[in-house]
Amino acid sequence: MNVTVRGRAQPFRTVTFDVKTNSVRLIEQRLLPHEFKIIGTRDFRETARAITDMIVRGAGAIGATAAYGLAQGALAFRGTDLGKFRNHIEIVHKTLGTARPTAVDPLNAMQQVLRAMSKGETIAEKQSLALAAAEEFANEDVQHCAEIGWHGAKLIRHGMNILTHCNAGWLAFVDIGTATAPLYAAQGQGKRFHVFCDETRPRSQGATLTAWELAQQKIPHHIIADNAAGHLMQRGEVDLVIMGSDRVLGRTGEVANKIGTYTKAVLAARHKIPFYVAIPLSTIDWNLKRGFDIPIEERHEGEVLGAWGIVSTPNSELRTPNLTQRAYVRVANPASPARNPGFDVTPAELITGIITPAGIFQPKELWKHRRKLGFAH
Amino acid sequence: MNVTVRGRAQPFRTVTFDVKTNSVRLIEQRLLPHEFKIIGTRDFRETARAITDMIVRGAGAIGATAAYGLAQGALAFRGTDLGKFRNHIEIVHKTLGTARPTAVDPLNAMQQVLRAMSKGETIAEKQSLALAAAEEFANEDVQHCAEIGWHGAKLIRHGMNILTHCNAGWLAFVDIGTATAPLYAAQGQGKRFHVFCDETRPRSQGATLTAWELAQQKIPHHIIADNAAGHLMQRGEVDLVIMGSDRVLGRTGEVANKIGTYTKAVLAARHKIPFYVAIPLSTIDWNLKRGFDIPIEERHEGEVLGAWGIVSTPNSELRTPNLTQRAYVRVANPASPARNPGFDVTPAELITGIITPAGIFQPKELWKHRRKLGFAH
Repeated sequence: MNVTVRGRAQPFRTVTFDVKTNSVRLIEQRLLPHEFKIIGTRDFRETARAITDMIVRGAGAIGATAAYGLAQGALAFRGTDLGKFRNHIEIVHKTLGTARPTAVDPLNAMQQVLRAMSKGETIAEKQSLALAAAEEFANEDVQHCAEIGWHGAKLIRHGMNILTHCNAGWLAFVDIGTATAPLYAAQGQGKRFHVFCDETRPRSQGATLTAWELAQQKIPHHIIADNAAGHLMQRGEVDLVIMGSDRVLGRTGEVANKIGTYTKAVLAARHKIPFYVAIPLSTIDWNLKRGFDIPIEERHEGEVLGAWGIVSTPNSELRTPNLTQRAYVRVANPASPARNPGFDVTPAELITGIITPAGIFQPKELWKHRRKLGFAH
Repeated sequence: MNVTVRGRAQPFRTVTFDVKTNSVRLIEQRLLPHEFKIIGTRDFRETARAITDMIVRGAGAIGATAAYGLAQGALAFRGTDLGKFRNHIEIVHKTLGTARPTAVDPLNAMQQVLRAMSKGETIAEKQSLALAAAEEFANEDVQHCAEIGWHGAKLIRHGMNILTHCNAGWLAFVDIGTATAPLYAAQGQGKRFHVFCDETRPRSQGATLTAWELAQQKIPHHIIADNAAGHLMQRGEVDLVIMGSDRVLGRTGEVANKIGTYTKAVLAARHKIPFYVAIPLSTIDWNLKRGFDIPIEERHEGEVLGAWGIVSTPNSELRTPNLTQRAYVRVANPASPARNPGFDVTPAELITGIITPAGIFQPKELWKHRRKLGFAH
């Protein structure tokens, strides 16, 4: 998507690879929304650290980063000993695979690269196959998101108000994003609409990342407190809800996503507002039998008890934020503890449809269409 | 309620009057939860400024402050000319009456004081009647909250998890509060229970004021992001919801309260969790015919785009917060605007009962019981 740098809009992917310097180039997401900066990792260890340190986050984005990181590691090998090369690749794979232990995307992405490499005979062949496979993974991620956008854009009509939550945007994938893909596609078709971004406490990804993305693409939007969506729906100010997901159960249609998703789904159902979830096929879990069994991460209470930002005043325009003034403030009563569940599970009955690269499906019909949706067994 | 000062729990009202120094004594609420400080206003102009500057906030608390301020102004008069005294009282009344233009409580409270003063003949008589009437207003406020507590405590059973939103606590009244009154009363009866405080973005009154109150009274509690209540209800971790209100429509049972109240009521109804609203009788509006006509204040977007707190780290204990480090941080994307509706309206069908000093009523039966509830016409 486009980012305006020095007054000029330029296209950027979240993750790319620079062959000349053998480096993975990443948007430094921890500086957003206050600074846009591209960093390059010099070797696979730095790439792994970029995943661990959340320079890059989001399913598709960390998948592509790990795939490129594996190619980067392969290309850095000097020598002709195939045995030593194999040992080296094993270390690279392990380093990148343990960078974000709970995520499955880096492992799946690297599997695709390893499979391609196995077809080469010489080290040079394996190296070039690795890079080609990593590029292919990234391009496929972009393609899947574009297909989600193509299907999802049909839901968007001129003049609509659309609510989204958290960030399932291009920053979480290589480009375009999932929940945002229909927005960008509809914009490309000349449709005009307006987006409400849920702030998404406690980590505020809606107010920071999604709002920044939409501002860069010049899509009209307002940030709202998570408390405000119900009131806006009641007053007829929301026509459509689109969110992403961390895991969709193929057998039940249940959707695990950022805390607060379930609340918005309940509100949307009450007001008969269509509620869609946009995902790549890799997000579907065909094994788990009930949503209640999805482990819900209880995160650090410091996230709920305070907030990160730039020290400022409520009225200042902040056109040139002073980044040295980046700080955490403790908002809450110092003597009070917090509970901080990071995700929730929304039942299928509250979801109008699941937008996938293969089309839009009713959540309860995923299982029926499992062959079309890539379930191999 | 009790506040622990230098290791010892002492009782404090939000608003009191000191006859010796002719000053209104107030908890400096803008410093909470990080510092507990009592300030004294030296004259009625300072008292009015304390209302304007939000040193004191909340319906009952600003009512009592205005009543005491009027007595303070009367007592400060030196001389024997009854005409000059009347002119002086007019100035005092106008100064306090315009301190918070949208609030009705200071006007009603001062009306009670003026009525009492009219029964005195000399200036000295009028002065002492003013003080007595102000004290009576404050005591009545305490009494009404105590009655709410007595009725509401019946709803609380041992081991319950109770959700509340924003601050309808003793800091918003002279003592005890409305939504918190049943909690304090149940605690007094030896019941043990646990409270979830909604953070209540954007102004975070739940995380700051309610959590501070509950910590002072040693009631076990956790702060949660506003996004988390739905998940906790789904997992059976909430047994009862009690909130306050800014305005309850006597004709329809609709409830206007802090933004997010409606969302919690929708969630509670879905999970069949009792949802109660606790109010003094003065909160009932017998005139308005539909909730849609309640004006919803759109507040400054800076509240949504950032947060106030003490500069710190997410892990620090903050037992001795550095108050010079109090700051506003801009969290959101600098180029994005926000919408900030301050209140919402909950329909009667979602409310289990209205807890009043006169007992608990179904919201749709308020009109039927209007005589008992103080509707004079």
